[in-house]
Parts: sequence; structure tokens; C-alpha cells
Amino acid sequence: MKKQQNILIIGAGLCGSLLALRLGQRGFNVNLYEMRPDLRKVEISAGRSINLALSDRGLKAMRLAGVEDKVKELCIPMNGRLLHDMEGNTVLAPYSGREHEFINSISRGDLNALLLDEAEKHQNVNIYFNKKCKSVDFENTTALFEDYETKENFVEDADIIIATDGAGSALRKSYFLGKKILFSFSQDWLTHGYKELSILPAKNGGYQTYKNALHIWGRDSFMLIALPNLDGSFTVTLFLSFDEGEYNFGNLTTPEKVLEFFEKYFKDALELMPNLVDDFFTNPTSPLGTVKCSPWHYKGNTLLMGDAAHAIVPFYGQGMNASFEDVVVFDKALDEGEPNSEAGWEAIFKAYENSRKMDTDAIADLAIDNFHEMKGHVNNAIFREKRNLEMAFEKNFPDDYSSKYSLVTFNEDIGYREAMLRGRAQDKAILNMLADKELDSNADLKTNLEKVNRATEEILEDDRVAKNFKH
Amino acid sequence: MKKQQNILIIGAGLCGSLLALRLGQRGFNVNLYEMRPDLRKVEISAGRSINLALSDRGLKAMRLAGVEDKVKELCIPMNGRLLHDMEGNTVLAPYSGREHEFINSISRGDLNALLLDEAEKHQNVNIYFNKKCKSVDFENTTALFEDYETKENFVEDADIIIATDGAGSALRKSYFLGKKILFSFSQDWLTHGYKELSILPAKNGGYQTYKNALHIWGRDSFMLIALPNLDGSFTVTLFLSFDEGEYNFGNLTTPEKVLEFFEKYFKDALELMPNLVDDFFTNPTSPLGTVKCSPWHYKGNTLLMGDAAHAIVPFYGQGMNASFEDVVVFDKALDEGEPNSEAGWEAIFKAYENSRKMDTDAIADLAIDNFHEMKGHVNNAIFREKRNLEMAFEKNFPDDYSSKYSLVTFNEDIGYREAMLRGRAQDKAILNMLADKELDSNADLKTNLEKVNRATEEILEDDRVAKNFKH
Repeated sequence: MKKQQNILIIGAGLCGSLLALRLGQRGFNVNLYEMRPDLRKVEISAGRSINLALSDRGLKAMRLAGVEDKVKELCIPMNGRLLHDMEGNTVLAPYSGREHEFINSISRGDLNALLLDEAEKHQNVNIYFNKKCKSVDFENTTALFEDYETKENFVEDADIIIATDGAGSALRKSYFLGKKILFSFSQDWLTHGYKELSILPAKNGGYQTYKNALHIWGRDSFMLIALPNLDGSFTVTLFLSFDEGEYNFGNLTTPEKVLEFFEKYFKDALELMPNLVDDFFTNPTSPLGTVKCSPWHYKGNTLLMGDAAHAIVPFYGQGMNASFEDVVVFDKALDEGEPNSEAGWEAIFKAYENSRKMDTDAIADLAIDNFHEMKGHVNNAIFREKRNLEMAFEKNFPDDYSSKYSLVTFNEDIGYREAMLRGRAQDKAILNMLADKELDSNADLKTNLEKVNRATEEILEDDRVAKNFKH
Repeated sequence: MKKQQNILIIGAGLCGSLLALRLGQRGFNVNLYEMRPDLRKVEISAGRSINLALSDRGLKAMRLAGVEDKVKELCIPMNGRLLHDMEGNTVLAPYSGREHEFINSISRGDLNALLLDEAEKHQNVNIYFNKKCKSVDFENTTALFEDYETKENFVEDADIIIATDGAGSALRKSYFLGKKILFSFSQDWLTHGYKELSILPAKNGGYQTYKNALHIWGRDSFMLIALPNLDGSFTVTLFLSFDEGEYNFGNLTTPEKVLEFFEKYFKDALELMPNLVDDFFTNPTSPLGTVKCSPWHYKGNTLLMGDAAHAIVPFYGQGMNASFEDVVVFDKALDEGEPNSEAGWEAIFKAYENSRKMDTDAIADLAIDNFHEMKGHVNNAIFREKRNLEMAFEKNFPDDYSSKYSLVTFNEDIGYREAMLRGRAQDKAILNMLADKELDSNADLKTNLEKVNRATEEILEDDRVAKNFKH
């Protein structure tokens, strides 16, 4: 059934580009449609984060597609969080006690362009820009597009349609509105929104502040972060409530008020941001949402991947990594399945969703937890004590301990869900033992590690026993 | 501002009728619109459960509205679960060790009619039937209706609109589709659906099986339940997967297959159901969903209540009770607020949602847990051991212990969330101590109770310490 080999991909963002590349490598006929202009030719407007944190799960996907070395040339290593207090004092909180574990700042646009270039090298991959998908007829496996240049609508037929069209996915809307299937769906908004700002390069083209870290100005109910770019600039993001607290997006309506806010809370950052007011009133304020849904596929016809299936908030730096990991998991399902008939595709889609959904649900929840950790807990004494202990464990017993952050970020061969369960149990064990003064910081480190690991196992076991009666 | 006193209620189901009654008692001008015909005059078709379990939270609301005594005349006490095994053997598992704690089977229609009658006694309450709300303009506080008799559309203006129009709420859809607010929303479907069946009265008008219990035929992956009606009949409900397992709604397509299924799994029930095949192919198969959303209100204009704000699955018998409790909580917010200006209403709506949402989220989750408990765990040895121990605690130390079920069902003065947290901690404590053989069933009961309470407190404390670093 050669006919089954025509695959239509909706959305040429990070996930769609990688998917097109990988399916092209596997020999499928791929047509990739994107609503935006070709970002390699046109400056794309802001509103999406300009840089992102690439870590081991994403790099594993780059390896699968044979582009890891090229991608690494775009990367700026970030070894930890550089925490800025109100007075401008800073302290580096490393991401791991193992020196080879770090995350990478990378330009969304550069990475996307690289993946498009690589995909286009395959004769069997064709990419079309300025074509906006409006809806998908998942029963007949056709998609309705609007051509933004000619303003005309047209329908594309395919054997398989995969939607990687992001948080506002047209296919997902068609599932939801079609009422042909029992479609479980959630969208959850935080009370906080975000706005992108910038720290420009130094006059000599260098960096105005420390390059190899993710900077955080955590102020409990809001925060500012900054990630480095290759050109010496930093992309800065303000996370702030829409309408609560003394300062919020709703009442920061004048340059004076914005400057007053930054003066009070982000003094050392403000000194590096003479362009603050311009940025603030030019760039949009955007909401932060989590989307979950199920099922991801309809029969063997259509499938949601990436943000279209599971959009998450950015606080674990895992949105892009999770979408890239989707491609790795999907590739494995292809290896194990028979993508040459409708029944074969249906089995592949089912196997993919069954193995993947619990992990994307987990990273969605972890990302929300991390919002609270980043804006507040990083400044808390007992939290820092926990992190210091974990760094010491990882440094001295690299094979015997990984913190929740390490499990999520640097352990690409275990799933997010397993990382979440073990990581949360560890956190619970350490925090409680610290609160009860059961961990003696003067005691032998190995003794403390054994205590923590024992308590973690007990917590996991107690949860297992209780959970068996819940599901 | 007398003008602020015109309240439009959409939906005259259980919640809307009680709300109209209570707001009528408080002196507001209430216009109550219902899309269905007046159920006191017309036989309403099936598809909704014919009887429901009324328990202490619901009764508290009846007390508030001064109708508790009248409602109790419609009630049939159910003291426990009567569990039917494959061979037709039965055992009664009481709901509580305290004899005065039981739930009540009640006819949805009779209760709804009673509330409508009581509401209509108030001159300031007007009820309109056959008027279907199609959308709500929450900015201008108007609702668009279709009159099912004249087929004409009309718009109603009000100072306040409260939507109690159930799981498919028109106001909720307007919030979702309007995109004026960041509206968090989830709909989650179980893989199981349900179908209503019946056991008819005995020839002498009596009951063909034990009257004062909720009957359960739990078969792990599916189940049958039955609740008594005043006329001697039972309403029977089959909960079964749509498309998985040997028998499912998808493949029960012939009378022979249905009879074969019941013969094999529900032999003793089948003997009482000569009308099974008729019922099975006449009555619809319906899905089981959970709906959560936020915010419930828009400014001081509009508010969602009851299933419109929080639809849940039926397995804790709390859907109606939660909606009635909404009215109690809302009534308290009215007492504490100033319902005489838009700002006053907004403060009331906000206070109501702030105090209420965490509780309705909790009962939604508990109801899903209970699905697994009812269809499977009730047959499990360690689960039964836990329940026996809890019954003994409640019987012998009635002031010192309440099981999760009791906390949820018979303790109307604590919220669902508190009941969930404490109840789950107790379950976890007992199940783990039983698994580890740390509870000696021959030991002094008081000793065991103290052990359980101590372990419960420890679990709650450990969770508190860990959670402080999550939110």
C-alpha cells in the first residue's frame, strides 16, 4: 500500500520541522505546511520567546536526526541559576553537582531554520509557507487551508495528517468542536502573564552580565529572568500577575510606573536596560497556559504532536525538549509498528499515545511547580539547604543520586513521569528530614545520602500501596 | 439601588429550583427560565438518572430552605452497599458504623417538582418553561433565549444572571467562546458510559430485593448498581466500557449478546429483570464526564452554579448534594456581602468562588476515585479489612473517627477538600499498616485507633511540609 506513505504535517515550528526531517529520513513523502512566512527569509515578529533552554532530551532528538553537532554550535551553556537579590547581590546555584550537566540557551529562530534546511535536503520533503490550516476533516483525512498570499482556500488530501501546529492547533479544535469523539480537553491559565524585554550587548560586543547562567530575579509573587544570546544580548522575560498585587500588568500603564517598579525590585537589571520603556510598551503581554487533551489521534488518520497535544508553561525549560522527545518516542513506535496500512498506523498512534501521554502530563505539572520554585523558593533557606545537599550528593556520589531537576533535565532515558514521582518523593524526604532536624549537615555525607534514599523508597512504597486502591 | 434586585436564573433543575426558592425567600425578584416543559405536567424522557442519593450536605440545604421535612417524606434510607458476587451471594457493607448515618434514595423528578412548587409560592418568583438559553452576553448582562413553542428568539435583560443550566451550560459556553477572559476549562471523559435499566415492583407492589441498600454488582472492569424507588421498583444502572473488554457497549448489539452478558455476570439481577432487553435497547447509552472551570463569574454580572460550574461523575453520590451545597455557601456569601450594587455583587461572587472552588474540585476527584472503589475494591480482601476496621472505630468511638466516606457524606460542616485530605491520609495510613502487618486485628481496638490517628497526622504533616514548596 504505497498510497499510505503520503504524510501531511501542519505547522513548521520546532516540532514540525524535526518531524518532517525525521520522516523524510525514513523515506516518507512529506508535505509540510506553515502559516507563517519562511523565517529564514523574513524577520518574524516577537510574542514568542526568542531563546529557549535546550537540554538532554532535546539533544537526544537532535542526535536521532543526525544534527546534534550542528545544533551544539548554536548553544550557550548555562551552568546554573544566577540569583539576583533586591540589593543586586548574586549567587550561582548550579543545576547539577555533576560538571558535565548543564542546559543551553539557543535561539528559537536559528534552531528552526537549521531544522528546515536539513529537512529540505530531502527530495521527498516539501515545505509550503503562508498556508494557514483552518480545520481538519479527520474522518476523510483532509485539511482545509487558507493561502495567505492568494487569500484562497484549498483542501489537501493525505494518507496521514500530523498536526504540530502548536497550542492553538486547528486539528485539536476540529476534534473538540466535531463532537464525533469523546474528546477530553483542558486549558488552564495562570494568573500571571509574561512580557519579553532585553539587555543589549555591551559596546564591545560582549555580555553586560555573566554569560553562562540563567539569571533570575525572584520576588515571590513575580520574577524576571534572562537568557544569553550569541550576539551578546540577553532575552529578558518578566512574569507578573495580570491584576493582583501592588504592581501588575494591569496598572503598569506609564513609563514612570514601569521605571518605579524596576527601580524598586530589579535595580541591577534596570541599569543594563536603558531600552526598558521602549521594550515594555512595544512588546505584547501574553498569557501562560497549559493544554492537555486525549485522544491525540483519530483512528489511523490523524495525530496531534508537540504543543498541539500538550502545551505547557515555560518554567521547567522543557516545552521544546518535550516536543522534540515526542519525535523520538514516535520514531520508536514507527520502528515497532507497521506503517503501511490504516490499521498499522492506528496501532502506531495508539502505542505512541499510550507510552507518551503520562509523561507529557507529568512535565506539564512539574512546569507549574517550578514556577513557584523559581519566583520564591530559590530564596528560601530550607530550600537552599536542600539544593546544597543535593549538589553535594551529585558531586560526590554521581552514580547514586540525581535531584528532581537532574532527573527531568539530564536523564533523557527515563520518562518525565518516573522523574516526577521519584523527584517529588526525594524532595518530600529531604524537606521533612530537614524540618525535623533529622539530617545533620555535619554528619558524613554518605550517611545522609543513605538516609535520604531510604526515606525516598519508603515514601514511594507507601504511595504505591495507597494508590493501588485508587486506580 | 433597587434595580439591582432583578435576578435571572437559567435552568430550573435541582440547583436552579432551590436557588430560586432561596432567593425568593430573601426577597429578590427572580425570573427562572427552563428549556424543558414543566416536569410537573409532562412526563420527562429518560437519559438522566431517575433517582439519586441525597445525603447530609443536601439535607442541610433543604433545611436552609425550610423544606427538609417535606423532602424526607420522599426519601428511602439506604444503610449500606449490598454487594452481589458472581454466584448471587450478598453481603451488606454499611456506609457508617454510626447507625444514624445513612444516605437516601430519592426521585429526581419528585424532588424537583417539590422545589418548583415551593419556589412558586413566592409572588416574586416567576418560572417560565420551554425557553432555551442559547447564549449570554455577560458584558451587558442579557441572555438570548429561544421559545420552543413559538420558535422565536428573544433577549432578557437582568441585573444579575445566574446560570444553573447544567453540564452543557450556555453561559459557560459563552465564557469559553467569548475569549474576553482567560477562561480555564476542562472536560474529562471516562472510557466507560452508562445505561439505565430497571427492576420492576413485585406483583404485590413490594420490593423484589432488599429495599434499604444501594445494590452493587462490582466486576472490576464494569459494574451494575440499583437504587430503590418509592413505588417498589429499582432504577438499575450499568457502567461499562464503550469499546474495551470482552463485553462493551460497542459490541452488545443483539438481545442474545446482552442476555449472555447478564447471564454470565449478573445472574441474580437478571432473574429480576425480565424487561432487560427492552430497557437495554430503548434507553440511551450516555457518557460520564467531569467539567471544571474558572472563573465562575464575570464581574458582578453573571455567575455559574451547580453542574454548570462543576459537573462530576456520579460515583460518590454527591453531584446533587454538591449543587445544593453551592446554594448554602452562596447564601452565606450573600449574608456577608452587600447585594445592592455591581461592586457588591462582584465581591459576593468572588468570595463565593474563592471559598467554594477548592471543594468542588475535591469532590470531582473523589468521585473518580470512588468509581474504582465501587467496581473493584469493594471485593478486595485488604480493602474490606480496612472498611471493617473503620466501621468498628465509628461504632465504638463515634466521636473519634470518621472514614473518608463519612467525612464526605455525613459531615456537612466540613468542606469536601478537608474531607478529601484527611480521608485520603487515613486510607493511606490504614492500607499501609495492614500491608505491613502493623495493625493487629486481635489487638485492643482503641490501640489500633490511636495508631491510625497518629499515622494519619504524620502523613498530613509530611504532605504539608512538602507542599509548602510547591504552592
